[in-house]
This record gives sequence, structure tokens and C-alpha cells, in this order.
Amino acid sequence: MIGKHIEEILKENEETFIVPADNVATLLYTHPLEHALLILSTVGYAKIPVLDTDDRLIGLVSLANIVEKMMGLTGFDYGLLSNLTVADVMEVNVPTVQHSEDLEDILHLLVDASFLPVVDEQQIFRGIITRKEILKSVNHLVHEVEKRYTLEPKVAIKNK
Amino acid sequence: MIGKHIEEILKENEETFIVPADNVATLLYTHPLEHALLILSTVGYAKIPVLDTDDRLIGLVSLANIVEKMMGLTGFDYGLLSNLTVADVMEVNVPTVQHSEDLEDILHLLVDASFLPVVDEQQIFRGIITRKEILKSVNHLVHEVEKRYTLEPKVAIKNK
Repeated sequence: MIGKHIEEILKENEETFIVPADNVATLLYTHPLEHALLILSTVGYAKIPVLDTDDRLIGLVSLANIVEKMMGLTGFDYGLLSNLTVADVMEVNVPTVQHSEDLEDILHLLVDASFLPVVDEQQIFRGIITRKEILKSVNHLVHEVEKRYTLEPKVAIKNK
Repeated sequence: MIGKHIEEILKENEETFIVPADNVATLLYTHPLEHALLILSTVGYAKIPVLDTDDRLIGLVSLANIVEKMMGLTGFDYGLLSNLTVADVMEVNVPTVQHSEDLEDILHLLVDASFLPVVDEQQIFRGIITRKEILKSVNHLVHEVEKRYTLEPKVAIKNK
């Protein structure tokens, strides 16, 4: 469990944890891969969320997912992408969170994921929590703790 | 400044902060972009270091840097990559660090960079420090602080 004072400081920027859905580039699972390649190469993110037509999150797709599909037996072939859609290459069953309050889970999941999609109970995509935003809070934390508190060891040091 | 007890706990995993150069996929600036595309799409990282023939770090290259170059006036054209090398698309003047001890700098720089190349005085590439490894230490930190220490507020709370 995260200590309560520590959690308090980490959460002082909680309102900025989530990049809202409106500010996140996404793709529909029905989009052709040519379109996906265009979006991904211009958007500045290596991986973005994939939605269905009801705004439900159904996966993530990366530039690497698409470029791999261009790899033919004798080299890359852009033609291999025709007739394929995002649904053919996306990663599914990706970890998500429902609230920015679940800091314990968020910090653990971000060890392996560069961002976490936030969804509601109906799996509607609400935004993302990025390592970038969490690292801003971590910077705040490590600078603030000992400005605000004196840290008293809980166990007496025996050999000193 | 990072508090001294906080820094102590964060650094307990310091030996794992740096992924050593031998375990990091890299490219030479002279490599053709077709080769770079192959490496980047198979390696699992969206961006990797670019070295010269003396192992000096000279830049970073991402899948997006290369895919952008394939964008022609009428759509993507793989042929646009021929005769281009990594040097033609890499990002230069990227932030680097020299030691895993510079935690203050590392934590700040990782807000905007997904990893930091580590170089020595001669700019020889020694490895990378990733957000992933730092987030492992952050998890350790937020769970340990209040197990080990009682946090006493430094200023009396006036209005209770």
C-alpha cells in the first residue's frame, strides 16, 4: 500500500493525470492501415487507442504493428497493407483503468505500459494516463516530502 | 533538491537503472533506412540510439522519423527510402546523462523523453535509462517511505 502522506502529495496534480479523450488521437478498428500509418506517423505517439463506432475502447495500435505487416519475403512491400484494417493488427486485451484515483494500480501498470487508457463502466474511452504526467507528479513528490515532513525512522538503528 | 532519505530509497535499485549498451538495439548513421525500418519494427522500441563507427552517440531514430519520409504527394511510397540513410532522418542534440547518480536531472529529463542515453566523457554510448526502470524504483519508493519512517509535519497545522 502507498503511504497516506505520500499518496496525498502525489495526488496534488491529480486533475492533470488524465489527458481527456478529445485531446487524444484515436483510430477506428475499421480504418484502412494506410490511414492508420498516416495518423501514427504525424501524431507523435508510437501507439494510440482503437475505438469502435460507439467510442468503446477495443485495442491499441502502434507503428510497429503496421510496419511488421509490410514485411514480405523479399523485403518491405507497402502493397501488403491494402485490404487490411486496424482490426487486423491491433493489440487487444490491453490493461485499462477506470479512475485516476487508483494510484496503486496505475503506478504498477505504467512499469510495462507507456500509457493507460481510461474507460468508464461501459468501456467508453475517456482518455489516457501517461508516464509523462505521472513522472511530473513524481518530481513534485520527491522534492516536496522532506520540505514538508521530518522523517523519523520507525525502528531504532542498532549498530551505529 | 530531492530529500536525502527519499533519494536513498530511490537509489536502492540504482544498479538496474542503466540498461547496458550490449542489451540495447542501435543503428549506425550510415545504415540504409530499409535496414533501420527492419530493426525498428522487430525490436519492440519505437526509438533507438544512433552511433558512429567509434560507438559514439550521435542521435536517435524512430519509426515515425522513417515512415514520414515515405509520405509522398499521392500517398506512401516505400521507394522514397532508397538512397537515404539513418543520418538523413535522425534527431540530433538529444539530452544525455553521464551517471545514474544524477537522479535530479534524470527524473526531470524523463518527463519529456521516454529514455535517456548514457554516454561517457568521450560521448561513447554506455546504455540507456528508461522510464520503465525508474518507475520500478518509484513503486518501491512510494511503498517503502511510510513503512520505514514516521512523517512529522515541519510546520504546525494552524486551522485543524
